[in-house]
Parts: sequence; C-alpha cells; structure tokens
Amino acid sequence: MAEYITEDFLLGNEPARRLYHEFAENEPIADYHCHFPPAELAENLSYDNIARMWLTGDHYKWRAMRALGEPERVITGDAGDREKFDAWARTVPFLPGNPMYHWTHMELKKPFGIADRLFGPDTADAVWEETRAQLGPGGIRVWDLLDRHRVRTICTTDDPADSLAHHEALAKSACPARVLPTLRPDKLAAAGDPPAWNGYMDKFAAAAGTAIATLDDFLAALDNRHLFFHEHGCRASDHALAVPYAAAGDRAAAEKAFKALRAGGAADPAGVEHFQAALLEEMARLDARRGWVMQLHLGAMRNLNRGLFKRLGPGAGGDAIADGDFARPLARFLGRVNGEDEGLPKIVLFTLNPAYNESLAAMAGCFQGDAVRGKVQFGSAWWFNDHKDGMTRQIQAAANLGVLAAFIGMLTDARGFLCFSRHEYFRRILCGLLGGQMASGELPADYPLVGRIVKDVSYRNACRYFGFAE
Amino acid sequence: MAEYITEDFLLGNEPARRLYHEFAENEPIADYHCHFPPAELAENLSYDNIARMWLTGDHYKWRAMRALGEPERVITGDAGDREKFDAWARTVPFLPGNPMYHWTHMELKKPFGIADRLFGPDTADAVWEETRAQLGPGGIRVWDLLDRHRVRTICTTDDPADSLAHHEALAKSACPARVLPTLRPDKLAAAGDPPAWNGYMDKFAAAAGTAIATLDDFLAALDNRHLFFHEHGCRASDHALAVPYAAAGDRAAAEKAFKALRAGGAADPAGVEHFQAALLEEMARLDARRGWVMQLHLGAMRNLNRGLFKRLGPGAGGDAIADGDFARPLARFLGRVNGEDEGLPKIVLFTLNPAYNESLAAMAGCFQGDAVRGKVQFGSAWWFNDHKDGMTRQIQAAANLGVLAAFIGMLTDARGFLCFSRHEYFRRILCGLLGGQMASGELPADYPLVGRIVKDVSYRNACRYFGFAE
Amino acid sequence: MAEYITEDFLLGNEPARRLYHEFAENEPIADYHCHFPPAELAENLSYDNIARMWLTGDHYKWRAMRALGEPERVITGDAGDREKFDAWARTVPFLPGNPMYHWTHMELKKPFGIADRLFGPDTADAVWEETRAQLGPGGIRVWDLLDRHRVRTICTTDDPADSLAHHEALAKSACPARVLPTLRPDKLAAAGDPPAWNGYMDKFAAAAGTAIATLDDFLAALDNRHLFFHEHGCRASDHALAVPYAAAGDRAAAEKAFKALRAGGAADPAGVEHFQAALLEEMARLDARRGWVMQLHLGAMRNLNRGLFKRLGPGAGGDAIADGDFARPLARFLGRVNGEDEGLPKIVLFTLNPAYNESLAAMAGCFQGDAVRGKVQFGSAWWFNDHKDGMTRQIQAAANLGVLAAFIGMLTDARGFLCFSRHEYFRRILCGLLGGQMASGELPADYPLVGRIVKDVSYRNACRYFGFAE
Repeated sequence: MAEYITEDFLLGNEPARRLYHEFAENEPIADYHCHFPPAELAENLSYDNIARMWLTGDHYKWRAMRALGEPERVITGDAGDREKFDAWARTVPFLPGNPMYHWTHMELKKPFGIADRLFGPDTADAVWEETRAQLGPGGIRVWDLLDRHRVRTICTTDDPADSLAHHEALAKSACPARVLPTLRPDKLAAAGDPPAWNGYMDKFAAAAGTAIATLDDFLAALDNRHLFFHEHGCRASDHALAVPYAAAGDRAAAEKAFKALRAGGAADPAGVEHFQAALLEEMARLDARRGWVMQLHLGAMRNLNRGLFKRLGPGAGGDAIADGDFARPLARFLGRVNGEDEGLPKIVLFTLNPAYNESLAAMAGCFQGDAVRGKVQFGSAWWFNDHKDGMTRQIQAAANLGVLAAFIGMLTDARGFLCFSRHEYFRRILCGLLGGQMASGELPADYPLVGRIVKDVSYRNACRYFGFAE
Repeated sequence: MAEYITEDFLLGNEPARRLYHEFAENEPIADYHCHFPPAELAENLSYDNIARMWLTGDHYKWRAMRALGEPERVITGDAGDREKFDAWARTVPFLPGNPMYHWTHMELKKPFGIADRLFGPDTADAVWEETRAQLGPGGIRVWDLLDRHRVRTICTTDDPADSLAHHEALAKSACPARVLPTLRPDKLAAAGDPPAWNGYMDKFAAAAGTAIATLDDFLAALDNRHLFFHEHGCRASDHALAVPYAAAGDRAAAEKAFKALRAGGAADPAGVEHFQAALLEEMARLDARRGWVMQLHLGAMRNLNRGLFKRLGPGAGGDAIADGDFARPLARFLGRVNGEDEGLPKIVLFTLNPAYNESLAAMAGCFQGDAVRGKVQFGSAWWFNDHKDGMTRQIQAAANLGVLAAFIGMLTDARGFLCFSRHEYFRRILCGLLGGQMASGELPADYPLVGRIVKDVSYRNACRYFGFAE
Repeated sequence: MAEYITEDFLLGNEPARRLYHEFAENEPIADYHCHFPPAELAENLSYDNIARMWLTGDHYKWRAMRALGEPERVITGDAGDREKFDAWARTVPFLPGNPMYHWTHMELKKPFGIADRLFGPDTADAVWEETRAQLGPGGIRVWDLLDRHRVRTICTTDDPADSLAHHEALAKSACPARVLPTLRPDKLAAAGDPPAWNGYMDKFAAAAGTAIATLDDFLAALDNRHLFFHEHGCRASDHALAVPYAAAGDRAAAEKAFKALRAGGAADPAGVEHFQAALLEEMARLDARRGWVMQLHLGAMRNLNRGLFKRLGPGAGGDAIADGDFARPLARFLGRVNGEDEGLPKIVLFTLNPAYNESLAAMAGCFQGDAVRGKVQFGSAWWFNDHKDGMTRQIQAAANLGVLAAFIGMLTDARGFLCFSRHEYFRRILCGLLGGQMASGELPADYPLVGRIVKDVSYRNACRYFGFAE
C-alpha cells in the first residue's frame, strides 16, 4: 500500500508544507509538562518489546480496548506482553477517527522506521518481531528517543517530599536532555481524607526538616521545599483542580481547619476548601517570588468508576470532564493574587472541558502585563482534547481572543517515551491551520512573518517563558 | 434547473462517494428510537395529502413559520390543509441554512420522485397535485414507506400502562418492519404535580393488576410491567431529564415522599427528587437484569412559552436547551448503579446541549467493559442538533474521545413517517466526514477498513447492541 | 508584495464572490448598536493622526500590546501619539490569527487607500505620514467616514438621565446618517453600590422632573424618560447582565429593597436582585408598549483586574466571559414577561460566551410569533466573538436552530469610527459561508434565493425590525 504517514501528513496545502518543513520540523523540543518517571530517565530504560512501551499505564488505550469488548485480563490483567499486544492489534483497526490511530502509526514510523503497512492483526507478527529486534539493552533506549526527537528540556511532575535524587543523578549524567522537576502539591491539598493527609504531612515535614503543627509551620515548610526545588532547577508548579475553588482562601478559616486536621479530627468541607485555596494562593506568591510558572489543570473529574479504582487505583481510565461554574471563582482567585500590583506569577490555564476554551482565553487576556510576553497563557489542548479538532479549537481560541504568537505551545503530558511524536503532531496541525489561512488569502503569503510565529510556538516561546537555555 | 438533491448530495469528495454508495446506501434501517404512533403503524395509515404528512405535530416547522411571521391560524389553527401547506410553501424559501431546507427536498425526492424544482410558492400547486396523486388509500401508505426505506426494526416510545395492543396486532400483521415498544416512565416520575401523578399511578396500578400504596408496591409493579414489555419484545427504556438528578436516590427519603404523595399530600421538592432518582436507579437495575438498553435524553427544558402550552399543550414549539451542572450528578448516578461490579445496563447518553458533547463522550468512556462493544454510548445528535454541523460535532466527539466504530448511529426521533430520510442524511454526513479524511490523507485510503466502520455505524452496530436480528 | 486585502478577501469560492459583490457590498449600513460618543458625531470630529483613531479607548488593542510585553506607558500612559503608534506597529506583526490583523489592514485600505504593504515597524513611518496627510480639520472627518461607508442609521448608547442635546443637534445637522439614542439603564440597576446609586438616582429624578422615594415613583419616572427617549427617535433599550437574574422580580421584595436603598441603607443582595429583575421586567413592558427592541447583552464579567480598574477605570481590558446557569433564569424571565399573550417586546439575545450559542438560539425559537418576523433574535457574534470563527459559529447556530433569513445581522459595538469595516467583514464571512454551501451543492445554486437572504441580513432586516426608513 501507499505510505500512510508521509512527509506531508496533515499538511494539506502548499503553505502548510513550507511552514512545517522550513520552520517547525527541525526545531528542538522543550517538553515543559509530562509524567515521565524520573527513575526511568535516570537509568536510561530499555524495553523488552513494544508492548511495554505502548501499553504500560496507558489508559487512553485501555479505554479503547474496553470499549471494543476486550476482556480486562488482556488490558490490565495477568496476560503476557504478547497477548496484550495482540489485543491492541485487534483494537487499532477500529480506531480511525481517534488520535490513537495517528499516534500508533507515527510511533511505528519514528523511531522504528515501519511505515509501509497499517497496524492490525494481520501485521501484528511482523511488527512485533521488527520492533523487538530494535529494542532490548543494546537497542533503542530512552536516551536514544530523546536524541532522535531533539528533546532539549523535560519537566517531570514531582511530589514536594521527593528527594529529587534522580534529578541530581540526571544532572551529572550523559542524558541528552536537561531534566527539571516540577512541584505538584496535590497530596498537600488532599485534606478531604484526613488520615492519609496527616500521614503524608508527616512525610512532608520530614523532607522539610521541621515539625508542622500550624498553618504557619506548614507555609514555612512549603517555602523551604519550594526553595529546595528551585535549587534543583525547578521553574514550575502544577495543580489539578476539578473546578476552581469557590472559597476565598480566608486565612483564619484555613488556620482553624488546618489545626483541626492535624489534631486528627475532620474539618468541615468549607474549612478544607479555605485551606486548599490558601495553599494555592501561597503557591502563587512563592511562584511569583522565584519567577516560576504556575500551571493550573482545570476540569478533570477522577476515579468515577469504583470498580476500576478499587482494582487498579487512579489513572485506570475512569476519569472524565467536569462542568459547572468556572469563570467567577477563577476570576476571584486570579484577581486576589494579582491585587493592584501584578502580583500574579506567570500562569498557564489548561482546561479539560473545551466548552471553557473561550472563557479561559478571555480571562488570560485580563491579566497580561508586567513586561512579560504572554504572562498568563491559555494552555494547550489537554488530554481528552489532544487531537486535531481539539488542538484546532484551542489554537483558534488562543489566536482569536489573544496573541497566538506568544503561545508556549505543546507538551506531551505523557508517561511513555514514544509520545514525543505529539510535538510533531501539534506542529503539523498548527502549520496546516496557518498554511490554510495563507492559501485562502486570510493571512498574507509572507513566510518570514508567519514562519517566525510557527518557530516561536514550536519551541522558542516555551524556552523564553520558563527560562530554559535554547 | 439542475437537480438539487443529487445522488452525491453532501458527498463532496471521491472517497465520500465511494463510502456512501458502496457501504452505506443499501444498508437497512434499525430505527431504535422514535415517536411514531403505534396505531398509525398498525392501521397502515394512508394520507389525503402531503400537508398531513408534513405538518401534523411538526413543531420544527411550526417554529420556523412563527419566526417568519405567519399567523398561528395557518400553523396550528383551524385553517385547512391546503392553506397550511401554502404557509409552509411561503416559509421554505427562507430556510436555506436550516436542515429543514434539506429535509423538505429530500422528502419530495423520496418517495415522491420530485427532484426537478425547489419548493416554494411558485411550485406549490404542482407539488400539491403531484403528491396528492400518489397518496390516498390506494397510494403510498406507511408500510410502503417502511418498505422503500428498507426499515427492518422500529422502536416506538410507550407508556408503562399501555396495553401494547397495537404492537400485538403489528406482530401478527404483514408490516414489513418489526415494531417493538420502548418503556418510557416519564409520567411515573412526574410527581411534581401530585393530583395528576396520583391519577396516573392508579391507572398504572390497574395495568399491573395490583394496588400501589408504598414504594415497595410501586417497584414490584414496575418490575411486573417491565417484564410485560420484555415479553412484547421491548429491549429499551427511555428517560427525559432536563438536568441529571442531583439527589442520590436515597431509599428512605424516596419512601417517605412516595407515601406522602400517594396520601394525596405534596412532597417537598427534595423528596420528589429522591423518588425520581430512586425510580431511575431501579429502572437501571431492571434494564441491566433483562439486558435492555437505557436511553437518557438529557438537557431539554420544556413548555417555556405559557401561551403556546395553554393553547396547544406540550410539543408545541416552546422547548429549549438546558445548561447547568451535568457532569457531577451524572457521574454520581452512573457510579452508584455501576458499583464495583459493572452493574450498569447498556446505556445511551443523549445531550440536547452540544456544549456537553465532550463531557458526555468522556463520561461514556469511564464505564466501558463487561465484554460489550460500546456498552455506554455517547448518543447521536438529538433534536436541535439534528443537522450537518450538529452531527459533525457529535461524530467528531464520539471519534476523538471514544471509538466511532462502536457507535450505534442514527435514529429518527420522529412522529412523521417521511422522516426516514434522516438516516440517509446522517449516512451522507458520516461518509462526507470520513471520506474527507481519506481524501486529505488523514485516514488511509483503505476502503475495507473505513467501509466496515461505515457499514457498522449505519446499521449493524444498532442491531448487535439492541439484539435485533439483522 | 501582492495586495493582502483584495476585492475578494475572505471570498474563497465563486458563489461567495458573486453573493458578496452582487448582493452585499453595496448595501447601506444600519449600525443598530454602538458606543460612538454623540458629541463626536455632533461636532463632526477631526483627527490629528491615525493613533487617535486607532488607539483611543481601544481595549482590544491594549490587551494585545500588554500580552506582547509592551509597557503600560506606551499603551495607556503619558507617551505621545507617535510613540503609542510605534508600539502598535511593533505589535501588529505578532497578530496573525487575531481579527485585529484583518481589521488593521482593512482600515488602512478604507478610508486611506493603503493596500500595498503590511503594517509593522518597517512601514510605520510611511503609514504615519500618508494617513496624517489625509487627516486634520480639512481631511477625513467623522461624517466623511459615515458617507464613505454608506451609513444610514446609527444607534448610540445613552444614559437615561441624558439630555439628548447632541441628538437634537444631530437631527438638525447635515450629518449623513440618522443618529438615534438607545436607552441603557445600567446605572439605575447598579444598586450594589448604594451611595453611588443614590447619587445617580437624584440626577435621574431631576432629569425626569420628579421626586423619587418609592419604587412606584421610580417606575413613573422611568416611563417618563422612556417617552422622552421615544420622542427623540429612540427605538431600543440595552442591558448588560453577567448572568440572567435568578430572582423573579417579586414586586414586594423589590419595593422593600428600593425603600431601604433610597433611605441610604443597604439592601440584602437578594433584595437588590429582586429590584434589578423588576426593573428589567418593567423595561420589557415599556419596550413592548412603544414597539421598541430590547437588547440583552449576556455573559460579560467586568473589571476583573483591580490594578487596571483602579488606574484606568472600566473598559481598560480587564473584562472576560461568564459561565454558570443561563437557560433557566433566562427562560423564567422571558416566560414571565411573555405571559400567555405574547407580552414580550422584540428582543435580541446576545451572548459573550459562545458555549451558549445553541441554548440562546433555541430559546429564541420558543417566543416567536406576534406576526413579527424574527421577533426574538439570537444576536450577532459579540465582542470576544467578533472574528471569523465566532461569526461562523453564530451564523451556523442561528441558521441551524432558527431562520437565518430573519436575522438582523451585524453591528459595530464600537467607539471608534474606523470600525464600520466590521460590517464588510461580517458580510464577507456570511457570503463565504453561504457561497461555500452553494459551491458544494449543500445549497442550490440559486442566486435570487440566497442573494435575497444576504441582502436582508446585511441591511434590510435591521431596518424593518427597528422601524428605520431604508
């Protein structure tokens, strides 16, 4: 058959092809948000087979296999790698229309060079063998993948109590990419489950080398850990919120709730939310003080399927998209922190619900300034939006309501190292969109003008925004 | 003039044309949700004229005529058929952009073979005469329409107290389609109007052959009627909710409310909602037990125009689209019923508000499994979304966030028998979309691969999902 | 370089070009909602330079400059006109994708005839000089702009206490457009700030020539001012609401709140909302009685950035898009006023949040009738939606869910007189969309049929709806 993933995949017009090949294709990658395990990066992980690369922890694929009636045993159960791979091979021919159909074939082409067939049961054997021959300890390993994709910077997602030992090791290693931590204080905020929270708080206190009884103790320890992360190159914090906190982060209410929780009791939900909001505001202040970027991931509802959660824990495919009131509580939070003197840090607003694209893009426009280019960002198409339509809608909202040229672009958000092709996917879609506007006369046929925007959004804006060396 | 509704209508590229003509066009129809009156099916209704087919009960058309300033007399009033037909003829030339402009011309072409003109005041006379010549007792009747559209299965929408006598008659008749009932317990849930509800509950009790004083009595009677419907071939229940119930369906609260209502008193709104939620949960359990499909129609606000409602009752054109919190209450309902053991029945989530497309599609993905292909469905574009843009958005969300190949496809949702062309309309749009992706290289030019999906979504998935013989 | 804004800008197919040039291009303009200062119209303002025309009060441009890191001094500060112009010239090359990139070049072409270059730092000098030569007291002035754009009618936005002296002067002047006031009672509704509200109420009472102590006094004065505006040609009221009022407009609660407020005390928020809802209902009744159009602008959250607001006041670029429950409170308001006898005035529903497009379009369809064509309108793409994608979505929702042919079309919503090109922008987009459907066969290639719709939406529907002479 004719090659599917050609050089001009998704580039449906001549300007798109020129923009991509001249301005985007060869740009390096700054993957400023992902879930790659630092240990796997540090040890330069090798793989026995492609099933390990494709199916480990990949709830996107698990959901698709379940939707096609595959039994859980070959999805997350005790079936062997080849059996799981075959289940995936049965699934893929039913996925046209889903981005995984693209990703699968892009990932076979790069790094494996397999581009002459469609993946499915009839080609599974050959794909298994040909990829296996390229894997194993002497084959393609994580650092090779970084190298082939020209990955210059990676920001992992890390627990505030983490020792960052893997990051220290990486800094001294020959890893071709700079690997920086990101501080994600989700467990500090998870005060809805007091025993687990208290246990974790003890661990956090130990990491900070202090005792934590009061909110003041806690905030001091948080500053301590924030500095520790900063010294290890961290330049971003990351926060997951189903919906923005409605509470105002009232200090007295937060203190009272904190004390009750640390004393082993429960706090009323309102008090817990005051504490969570106060924590988020404090993080914003610390981020502003040290020049970090605050990333807000808004709109995920998690672990909705109790059976999955009980059997597999979080990240098992039971997550969905929240709705409800976003704009007012978010505006209140941003307005409070910003105050009258631009007290906000650089901040990225991601939404899982694309119905909020325009309201977040408009909100971002209210808090620009401070001599920072794109200080408040409307973040890239996240998770359930990571496909051509979702990215197109995100790019259009960013462009129509703000300044696309200041956008920091794409990230993988992934835990598997084959996912670097997402950057290529995004760049092709970006160039297809802008190229189409050039072709129709909606944009002038001025390649330096539009090409600079493509180059900046592909790589350079992220570097400047986070302060990475290019 | 050149023919408007050509063979290749809406098929703007070569792959679309091949997909449609080779894989979709000749598939039969399984119309798994509609509002056709069983009596009209049973009697094989004939029509005096096309006004009766087009304008009876069609609030889509009524709204359009009102918006163009036609007086109510020629819309729903005492004007004669021809006068109403002429009002519609005056209206149609103002409808380009609205799906009714397509439907009108598709319905003239099939079954009447009128394809050489646009409908409007200047062609109204000829259309009236030419269609009239094909109607009447010896002309085109309902069963002919079923036959010409290759309709194999129809699921009507039926009251739980219904005797299903028409369905019994149909089962013994020469009707070319299998006609099955659907249990729709809206009146059982309508406890906001206690006197009407109590009166209906008495009727329901009589149908079940039992007395109903307590919630337990009621649930036993519900099981009885569910079984009765099952024995008459019913394989689906159907439920209309403006927004998902926020209440948890607490049993004690539901019992208390039920007792108060049956005693002729009122129940507080919270109690009523507990009862309604408990009823819905019980229906889900019964549906799961007997292998039925539960259909949830979410997001319609009804009878907003008091004058219309007073003069014409429900379904008069005074309905609109709800918003508000959908995701959390819906997740709570699905999570509760599913429990830890996949206790959910097969379920279809329809939304009238397209802003919820992505959140419903993502939600559906959380509850897949149970070895059923597409167990929880993100339902087709409903009512106000039944047009090219709405279907395109629905198909894209279903594909991007789930598995389009597992989708059970379109339905008419209609009460008029000319509406079978909606299936053709949907299939053309589906093929236009997938064909466009093949033409651009976004999908491989592999006709067996994509054609199978087209065929399945057009007909076979619905049959397998509901258990209809193909 | 090749001309950027050509004759066929945004007209990507032959039918689009014919529709635009034959049916849209030469239609006059009825700008039925804008924020042009009546004083500037009355004095036939002249401009020293293009910076005054482009940058005065234009928060769209301010936001873009801030997002690119320009210092506030050259945006709203004490920098000179040329310095601000240069900041804008630095900004524009980063705006491809944003509608301002189109507007800027359309505004250079018309009225200045500059179409041979892209705007940016390298062309700034020449543009400055060439435009300056055409400006000044003897150059292009406001009335020239009205003339060149064929503006026949303008509706300004006016305070209920205004003397309308400028409108009186304009009526006697040689201004080529009819300039009518619009009554916008925002300050009457702003009872959340009692001292400011009381001060304004005194001014309003003086304008009405009466004392206002009770709600009845107030409503009598409102009727008085409504009549005064009517006698000055006013045919519309205009209202800004973040979200539709949840309160029912209960008369007793409103009276109590009004009395408390006038006595210099505060009213509880619920009472204030009852008053606001009662005011809106009374305005609807007055509008219905005098045949006016009520315009509801829904979904703007204002002044979110405290620093900007403190330094610059409202309209400084700190506004965003609201979400939350819209449909139920809006349906309640419309249903109450409409009653059983079509008591609603003509009404236009604008939404700033495009996620509500479909729910507003469907809602509009519920209240049609009264022998008025398009009595309740789903309003044009507003503010953050004023771009090709936003207009396309608005037009599609209006067409799919209602009757595009009855739509009253575009407005500028502007305070700067170069913005008349927005009508051209809208018409090109409208023709591009309908022409594309003709080219693909989705609409018949019948130019009289589709051209009439284009003509009506471009100009004539607005005239008929508001009662302007054509």
